[in-house]
Amino acid sequence: MTTHDNNPLLGKNLRVNADRLWDSLMEMAKIGPGVAGGNNRQTLTDEDAEGRALFQKWCEDAGCSMGLDSMGNMFAMRAGTEPDLLPVYVGSHLDTQPTGGKYDGVLGVLSGLELVRTLNDLDIKTRHPIVVTNWTNEEGTRYAPPMLSSGVFAGIHSEEWAKDRVDINGKRFGDELKRIGWEGDEPVGARKMHAMFELHIEQGPILENEGKDIGVVTHGQGLSWTQITITGRDAHTGSTPMPLRRNAGLAMGRVLEKVDEIALSHAPHAVGAAGHIEVFPNSRNVIPGKVIFTVDFRSPDLDVITDMEARLRQEAQQIADTMGLDIAFEKVGGFDPVTFDDNCVSAIRDAAERLGYSHLNIISGAGHDACWISRVAPTGMIMCPCVDGLSHNEAEDITKEWATAGTDVLLHAVLDTAEIVE
Amino acid sequence: MTTHDNNPLLGKNLRVNADRLWDSLMEMAKIGPGVAGGNNRQTLTDEDAEGRALFQKWCEDAGCSMGLDSMGNMFAMRAGTEPDLLPVYVGSHLDTQPTGGKYDGVLGVLSGLELVRTLNDLDIKTRHPIVVTNWTNEEGTRYAPPMLSSGVFAGIHSEEWAKDRVDINGKRFGDELKRIGWEGDEPVGARKMHAMFELHIEQGPILENEGKDIGVVTHGQGLSWTQITITGRDAHTGSTPMPLRRNAGLAMGRVLEKVDEIALSHAPHAVGAAGHIEVFPNSRNVIPGKVIFTVDFRSPDLDVITDMEARLRQEAQQIADTMGLDIAFEKVGGFDPVTFDDNCVSAIRDAAERLGYSHLNIISGAGHDACWISRVAPTGMIMCPCVDGLSHNEAEDITKEWATAGTDVLLHAVLDTAEIVE
Repeated sequence: MTTHDNNPLLGKNLRVNADRLWDSLMEMAKIGPGVAGGNNRQTLTDEDAEGRALFQKWCEDAGCSMGLDSMGNMFAMRAGTEPDLLPVYVGSHLDTQPTGGKYDGVLGVLSGLELVRTLNDLDIKTRHPIVVTNWTNEEGTRYAPPMLSSGVFAGIHSEEWAKDRVDINGKRFGDELKRIGWEGDEPVGARKMHAMFELHIEQGPILENEGKDIGVVTHGQGLSWTQITITGRDAHTGSTPMPLRRNAGLAMGRVLEKVDEIALSHAPHAVGAAGHIEVFPNSRNVIPGKVIFTVDFRSPDLDVITDMEARLRQEAQQIADTMGLDIAFEKVGGFDPVTFDDNCVSAIRDAAERLGYSHLNIISGAGHDACWISRVAPTGMIMCPCVDGLSHNEAEDITKEWATAGTDVLLHAVLDTAEIVE
Repeated sequence: MTTHDNNPLLGKNLRVNADRLWDSLMEMAKIGPGVAGGNNRQTLTDEDAEGRALFQKWCEDAGCSMGLDSMGNMFAMRAGTEPDLLPVYVGSHLDTQPTGGKYDGVLGVLSGLELVRTLNDLDIKTRHPIVVTNWTNEEGTRYAPPMLSSGVFAGIHSEEWAKDRVDINGKRFGDELKRIGWEGDEPVGARKMHAMFELHIEQGPILENEGKDIGVVTHGQGLSWTQITITGRDAHTGSTPMPLRRNAGLAMGRVLEKVDEIALSHAPHAVGAAGHIEVFPNSRNVIPGKVIFTVDFRSPDLDVITDMEARLRQEAQQIADTMGLDIAFEKVGGFDPVTFDDNCVSAIRDAAERLGYSHLNIISGAGHDACWISRVAPTGMIMCPCVDGLSHNEAEDITKEWATAGTDVLLHAVLDTAEIVE
């Protein structure tokens, strides 16, 4: 790799076009608007297809050629001067939560596009090609698990299994990908990477609270999703005496309390909650005979995750036994904590230093496509602050300055890695 | 009223046709089958319409004339010898829970039909007309509150308000009643009643546990439904530190525990549970920003209901305040405890004695159409056992013997009240 010391083009005055970056973010946010100012552009919907088409048009206008693999992952390549060198990848995802924000994922894709546009403006060439990526179904809301297609790319899941995932209406991932017209021919995971960088909003409050522009992500939290099914007995809420009830809803309430206790016992880094809860038959005058819910535990320490998962099963089993209920556990998602690549992390930190942005080492609390890609390529992540740490919420917000700082750092880290032709 | 002592026709050998009663129950259960052997014949669905048409055909075959009011309540009349006397009503409801049984409500309607058929067989005439009733939307699952149309009949709700109720898909009660073709012209509540009897399965375990054939219902439990909305903040399950979370799902778990504690503090007659629970946005990696759920409290003592409701609000408010969440309460259903009419209760007890059926005074734990009708007419209720006390469950079950005993008692209590012409 070159460094800024022997490459005058990598000076602190090399910056992206902040207005153009912001305008593109606002333009993309018009597709799949939410109900409260954010976005509902869930994966493999018509809105997802519309967002993809706009991204493709922008990339082609910027002189890139678009690749598309059979999971719908999009790869927009800006050629390098040495076609045999492996490309440097940047990117994230364009899909959103059902009540998602404008920046989660989108910033990581469109900052890559802005980087290419800036290089075009300045007629800067790199030895390695640069590829801007949109990974399919990062969110995992419509099709669990999250980071599904980067997971297939990294060999975590088989493509067959991924395509057989079904949404709540029974629609298969594979069928929906075909339906929206974004199934490509390229085999998934065939590409080799020189390196991969992902810029993402923090989705937490630390950078804003500490007044830092840039998070240099050193590690990613591991995750464990346990889906719990508790089975009691549907019965009339009026005429069933209290001692004879087998109330699955009450048991769930008790497990939710335990989830909180277990996560707090590993403060400050571990977290736990249940976001997904279904109650059957869900009628005001029927005691719930069944509940299905998913417990999400995270920690940067694999031992802590293992401990939380085991304690959850033990405590929940005890609650069910005491109440005379049946209980079943299924691990429906998980990944180990990640340590990002030293060279990539250094490139990011150096870029922030060079550009005069304040920065902080940080652990990613959320899962990201970069977490899977780190299994198959040297990978780094950049974070920028978001207001109140809020994400997965239509009120998710960032400033133009934060987006710009993150993209400037991305530009420099990528150029440092892709090697400018002088 | 006459008594069995001066009416030889009311002898213990006068019984209904058990096989015909059972066959009709099985025939009706074919309409709107459930997924596990029970029924899903929810109010104002196509299946409800089909069940109504079958009931009408059976009534007309038995020589009855059908009346229909503008809430869709059906009134099949067997004429008396003195047309100016007020009729004796029997009946219940043909609609079911989404995962309901074959007998809840249905037995009360078809036992009335069997009573008429038996009188026809034996050519028994009564001074008062007898009317077999099917009350619309007793269950309240699709359109809250339960006992909606008997409630309008009794002047508890206005018809306009009732017709404006909407289901979960936004469809109005009034529009759906029209759509299925069962909106009549008769003004609701215009009919006056000499008396009203309802036979219903117990929906609780007491009669079976005590080995009794007949429950002589002396009182009905009062009910209070409080819908609670807790609002926190949607946020990412991974990157939001525990102390900054506003987890509405966890708060609900804590309230569910309080509901149980409050009901148990008024043992043995009070009960409490939440059967209806909705979580938003209900995604595995989003901390719930909102929950809506309904707490059902019941007791035969009005003071206890009032106390439970007040404590719920106080405890839930405190949980929300402690966690920094907003909370709102709405009373979405309720009725006061009921004391049934002395003469009707005596007629039921006398009939059980006369027929040699074992019996027990009992409090109805569930709400029933008879609870509302007791506000406007002398009313009595008969209960028969059900297996394991199970109801609002497709596995709800009774024996042919239990159904027959209940119908025999209904026959005698009605004849005692409608006065046999000798």
